[in-house]
Amino acid sequence: MRVYDIIEKKAARGELTGEEMKFFIDGVCDSSIPDYQTASFLMAVFLNGMTKRELAEWTIRMAHSGDMVDLSAIEGIKVDKHSTGGVGDKTTLVLGPIVASCGGKLAKMSGRGLGFSGGTIDKLESVPGLRTALEPETFIRLVNTVGMAVAGQTANVAPADKKLYALRDVTATVNSIPLIASSIMSKKLAAGADKILLDVKIGSGAFMKTVEQGRELAAAMVSIGEANGRETVAMLTNMDRPLGRCVGNMLELREAWNTLRGEGPDDLTELCLTFAARMLHMAGLGTEADCRARAEGSIRSGAAAEKFRAFLEAQGGDFRAVEQPERFYPAPRCRVIEAERDGWFAVRSAETVGKASVSLGAGRLRKEDAIDYMAGIVFACAPGEAVAKGQPLCTLYAADAARINEGEAILREALDVREDAPAGEALILDVVDKNSLK
Amino acid sequence: MRVYDIIEKKAARGELTGEEMKFFIDGVCDSSIPDYQTASFLMAVFLNGMTKRELAEWTIRMAHSGDMVDLSAIEGIKVDKHSTGGVGDKTTLVLGPIVASCGGKLAKMSGRGLGFSGGTIDKLESVPGLRTALEPETFIRLVNTVGMAVAGQTANVAPADKKLYALRDVTATVNSIPLIASSIMSKKLAAGADKILLDVKIGSGAFMKTVEQGRELAAAMVSIGEANGRETVAMLTNMDRPLGRCVGNMLELREAWNTLRGEGPDDLTELCLTFAARMLHMAGLGTEADCRARAEGSIRSGAAAEKFRAFLEAQGGDFRAVEQPERFYPAPRCRVIEAERDGWFAVRSAETVGKASVSLGAGRLRKEDAIDYMAGIVFACAPGEAVAKGQPLCTLYAADAARINEGEAILREALDVREDAPAGEALILDVVDKNSLK
Repeated sequence: MRVYDIIEKKAARGELTGEEMKFFIDGVCDSSIPDYQTASFLMAVFLNGMTKRELAEWTIRMAHSGDMVDLSAIEGIKVDKHSTGGVGDKTTLVLGPIVASCGGKLAKMSGRGLGFSGGTIDKLESVPGLRTALEPETFIRLVNTVGMAVAGQTANVAPADKKLYALRDVTATVNSIPLIASSIMSKKLAAGADKILLDVKIGSGAFMKTVEQGRELAAAMVSIGEANGRETVAMLTNMDRPLGRCVGNMLELREAWNTLRGEGPDDLTELCLTFAARMLHMAGLGTEADCRARAEGSIRSGAAAEKFRAFLEAQGGDFRAVEQPERFYPAPRCRVIEAERDGWFAVRSAETVGKASVSLGAGRLRKEDAIDYMAGIVFACAPGEAVAKGQPLCTLYAADAARINEGEAILREALDVREDAPAGEALILDVVDKNSLK
Repeated sequence: MRVYDIIEKKAARGELTGEEMKFFIDGVCDSSIPDYQTASFLMAVFLNGMTKRELAEWTIRMAHSGDMVDLSAIEGIKVDKHSTGGVGDKTTLVLGPIVASCGGKLAKMSGRGLGFSGGTIDKLESVPGLRTALEPETFIRLVNTVGMAVAGQTANVAPADKKLYALRDVTATVNSIPLIASSIMSKKLAAGADKILLDVKIGSGAFMKTVEQGRELAAAMVSIGEANGRETVAMLTNMDRPLGRCVGNMLELREAWNTLRGEGPDDLTELCLTFAARMLHMAGLGTEADCRARAEGSIRSGAAAEKFRAFLEAQGGDFRAVEQPERFYPAPRCRVIEAERDGWFAVRSAETVGKASVSLGAGRLRKEDAIDYMAGIVFACAPGEAVAKGQPLCTLYAADAARINEGEAILREALDVREDAPAGEALILDVVDKNSLK
């Protein structure tokens, strides 16, 4: 078999055989295929796509390029949840404790933030002492005892994807539905859950800008999951504005805690209850309506908040940092941005909000950048709310005045006070499951 | 400027600016662009093409990546001729002496054969002593005194094309009209002629298999030439069968000589007279009909044959080798293939004939392979001729029995004796010039 023929076949819109995929993926992993041939192949896939059957097989073979996590030691049906990434997205931190307090299990591998989009691992690590580099045995023990655990991705999950992603990143082939879908799903298939719930973010603060794009990506991922024997459901959710009111690591962690105590913003609370209900239902723990009621009850009763504390402490976190972060970190500088006129508050671009928070110190532009856990933005009102001139719109936090200035300059681009009241925006835009596939 | 953005633009079917092309071609030449980015770009061009304007500018910029040959010291209008390559194609060797003996000038740079297709330089080098590595001054002096010279390509003609071709060759992006057209025309533009006559071979023994493909390539090349101020005409000619009766280096050289003495096969004679007439006409030496008559006269009078000898000797060749090659080379083994039944002789695939001649030793599969100048095939009859059972179809020549056996096995795949008389095939399938362009 020759790489040349595989590239030629894909350039001619041919469908690769399993043997050809194996040969190619093996060659990428052992570096026997030179980068220029891989790059040429990736551009051919970028422009010509893959068939459904091809994409499903390609993805499971990518998964098998590394370790396949074995979660069989965890009792019950394991449902994984994955978000395509957004601004202020702390869903996992709220959803996990709700699900766990209702008898579900969440064994989750998460990533770090990069660019304007945050990552769960960074948010968790804002809690002093908390470890996310968990040995498999510890990980499984925590899920069995606490009901949830969140670990950083180990080095050997879908190594083929790591190599392909690095090349895509420098050859303008990132933004391809089959390549994105196979990248995400190869890691999900390797992560070992029985079922997968996907949160496909749509809008100015997400990688997918339109519902049509999002639906296409969702369909590709659901199709991959189902073809490989994993029930997969994708919810398309609004990311035209940040989720909740807080953007920044410790700020978001605290918002998650408040939400679990029933004091969270409406959008975040609603999204997490919806996901929790669906996840518990997928885990076989009742009808969706019944699961929704139990999820709401877990917040009312305090069980979910208690589970949050137990989860953080089980992974070594010092919970006092959530209650009183100033005992652990120097108090940041802050600045309030006020409305310059009467009107309705609006966010022009959630991505710009994400970029402002990065420049405040809450994120990283390069992998090696350090994160300031206390930096970020807290909104005083939600998009669509009426505001009066002089009323605070948000507060910025950063380590020094220079960063505050830089963050403010970016953030002001994103903020608007409009003359007309905006139409209400749906939070859940669509749901794609196997019955939606053509 | 970033390579990434250029790749992204081309992947999105954008039209590159001159600045972007310069940046890219410079980066390819000085190796500042890594191969994987170049490969990705080439696949994007392969699948998305280039606009007419873009292709014309891309090609002249490729030409300018190396030396631009200056032919101004040669008097008159210089017309270059280029063939896209075929089996048994010795047109240059016949055409050049006719043109030169009629007062035209041929200053030609040629290549070597690779794969099933032969090269003029290899054919010339079958003459002992003949040099094709000519200094520019010698080259120009010979054209001025003899009327023609044929030199191997110098290292620095369109170096960007060399690098791109090497990558295309391993990334399945060779077979692309804009990439083929720019590769050929960048070298033609750099070679310095005022006008360009292209022989686009069509059929089983050519790279272009159909007239439609050929017409597309011809239009692309004519468009590039005209946009860069060079009158360019492309003739589409039949390569469903080898041209003439001989395939192999010294065999073809001798066939050229016989043709110049009026004893050549009809197809080769007719093709060369047609090209000579058009070339002389393009050089401003009369109407096409008048030039045709003079070309025919040069064969009748012996002037063309005399010019052939003068040309070979001027480049150091020992002409006795053309007359009596066995004085210079060991006599090869030979084997005759006979018709197995009565019928009409046919060639199934000229490419297979080319491959048979390579395996007899007449060509090379890899650049470093040596050539056996005496090896090859001589057909006893032309396709379409009636043959009787037992009548010789062709003779194979090679250095040893093993090669004869190997060549015969391949050649038999290509030979056929059919029950029905075939329809006559046109030799010139179409002509594309600037008036044919949309």
